[in-house]
Amino acid sequence: MATFPSPEATSEATAKAPMSVSAPPADSRQRVSTFLKGLQDQICQTLEGVDGEKQFQQDSWEREEGGGGRSRVLKSGKVFEQGGVNFSEVWGKDLPPSVLVQRPEAAGHGFYATGTSMVLHPQNPYIPTVHLNYRYFEAGPVWWFGGGIDLTPYYPFHADAAHFHQTLKQACDRHHPDYYPTFKRWCDEYFYLKHRQESRGVGGIFFDYQDGRGKLYRGPDAQGPAATYSDSVGAIEPQSWEQIFEFVQGCGNAFLPAYVPIVERRKDTEWGDRQRDFQLYRRGRYVEFNLIYDRGTIFGLQTNGRTESILMSLPPLVRWEYCFSPEPNTPEVELYDVFLKPQDWANWSR
Amino acid sequence: MATFPSPEATSEATAKAPMSVSAPPADSRQRVSTFLKGLQDQICQTLEGVDGEKQFQQDSWEREEGGGGRSRVLKSGKVFEQGGVNFSEVWGKDLPPSVLVQRPEAAGHGFYATGTSMVLHPQNPYIPTVHLNYRYFEAGPVWWFGGGIDLTPYYPFHADAAHFHQTLKQACDRHHPDYYPTFKRWCDEYFYLKHRQESRGVGGIFFDYQDGRGKLYRGPDAQGPAATYSDSVGAIEPQSWEQIFEFVQGCGNAFLPAYVPIVERRKDTEWGDRQRDFQLYRRGRYVEFNLIYDRGTIFGLQTNGRTESILMSLPPLVRWEYCFSPEPNTPEVELYDVFLKPQDWANWSR
Repeated sequence: MATFPSPEATSEATAKAPMSVSAPPADSRQRVSTFLKGLQDQICQTLEGVDGEKQFQQDSWEREEGGGGRSRVLKSGKVFEQGGVNFSEVWGKDLPPSVLVQRPEAAGHGFYATGTSMVLHPQNPYIPTVHLNYRYFEAGPVWWFGGGIDLTPYYPFHADAAHFHQTLKQACDRHHPDYYPTFKRWCDEYFYLKHRQESRGVGGIFFDYQDGRGKLYRGPDAQGPAATYSDSVGAIEPQSWEQIFEFVQGCGNAFLPAYVPIVERRKDTEWGDRQRDFQLYRRGRYVEFNLIYDRGTIFGLQTNGRTESILMSLPPLVRWEYCFSPEPNTPEVELYDVFLKPQDWANWSR
Repeated sequence: MATFPSPEATSEATAKAPMSVSAPPADSRQRVSTFLKGLQDQICQTLEGVDGEKQFQQDSWEREEGGGGRSRVLKSGKVFEQGGVNFSEVWGKDLPPSVLVQRPEAAGHGFYATGTSMVLHPQNPYIPTVHLNYRYFEAGPVWWFGGGIDLTPYYPFHADAAHFHQTLKQACDRHHPDYYPTFKRWCDEYFYLKHRQESRGVGGIFFDYQDGRGKLYRGPDAQGPAATYSDSVGAIEPQSWEQIFEFVQGCGNAFLPAYVPIVERRKDTEWGDRQRDFQLYRRGRYVEFNLIYDRGTIFGLQTNGRTESILMSLPPLVRWEYCFSPEPNTPEVELYDVFLKPQDWANWSR
């Protein structure tokens, strides 16, 4: 992969317009991308151990307009039917409209973006699907971090949802007490399928546009349910670039302890056609979310990203069924009634 | 279903702003919806005969904001793995942004929309998937027809593509010699997956915003490839409402003779896992197109349409495979090289 242009080469505007509260250090891009590459390495290595049978295969790729990445896929494993872990680092002249609408200050400036993203589709329907994405942008006078982790179970285990949320809450609380409650609610709003009136799963944390100005939440996402946040919800004291980067590292490092124990707990549970059919059906919601709403997917397709890497998040096998609804008094209906609605999982106790 | 408001009740603006070239007759809505309902009936009845085993099941539904429809689905037939044929008729206060951007004159007016749409997913991979949609809008001072028919084969049979296009061309030529060439190209542009750099299939005809003003094509669709049409491409002499409605009826009635002979020709061809795997993989492109680009899907979801009816077009079983590409010198690669690029099928001769 070609090295990315030095800050001097693309951010001449930086000197003119003031950076938010805290300017990033001179080596910001390298430090973030090094962390995100390391996160990809660490996650892939651990997941290979968990799977026990298959390894990730890597494709390195370059992007014509600038940048590139390394996509890693594990196919037909014992535990993971498919897992994709992408790292990418891209730059170019103009951010796409989907980003500029949220960040008008970036218009007319070159941009730099780096991120690690991952989706795992387990074989066993009792193991939830999981998604991780952390990303960093610089564009003229602005920089910001975004991302999150969220869990999508097919079968309702309260203990799994609680463990996942408690682990994320601990990681957040180390940095600021407002982070978890704000980013948990943001996640519930973001991963919401309006046309189904369903949450994608039990959520986790999600944030975007964190630039140290202390406004944790910049208004409801277009695709969320009714505007439940005002611009000031979760506003905190200004944070430095270093503080936010540390927080993002803490979130990234929380993924394995949040997810792996759930996999270990469920991977030997026996399942049959009924569970498999339901899993394939519910995977359809994942496709619908990613293609209709997901900001990362839309960003990738709009910036001529590598299609195979962007759509690596789609499940290997999916089913749609007209007017399906689960029978009363089954685990499947409990999933709909309890797990596909926002819940206070971190405070759940048996 | 409640009856829709009379023209007097919602189109008070009609008297003030001049209708394009030709005002619709007083019973325009009823005439179009009666035709579109009849088209649904005729298609369902014939397809049941072709399938020979299963019937369509109907759900009637109402839309809170106004209107409703009847959705018909045939599941797990001998020939059709799934077929969905929808009729709907809806009205409301404001057209959604996706339509207003193309029809700014309609802003601030109540609207009426009716349409029949259909997607068939055959069991046998040698039978192509087919899509039909015809629709009619009235909103304040404007009215227009849109729609089309297009074919998506999984295996490359030149004769099928040629028959399909020749039948549509004959139907178009009866009304105006410019219709087929213009609407064939428009279809090639519309059913194009930019992120895959592939056509969805061999196309057919597609048009939108036909309001009698003689401008057949109003500029490239946002999602099409580079702008190959200017605003004046295919401009013809003004047409009356009656003339355009007759043309749309001709197009609707051309569906069965365009498609059914292809089904009859291929339905007894034996197939195995290789063909099935490829069909399931290619069905993924159908999902990608419908959820990322399709105007009808976006309109439906934006207007709080009935989700199950809108997404009835999605295939019952779909596969995604990271970095799949077909082997050289196979029918599968011929599909990519020849059939997923625009071709002059109406003039194909063996």
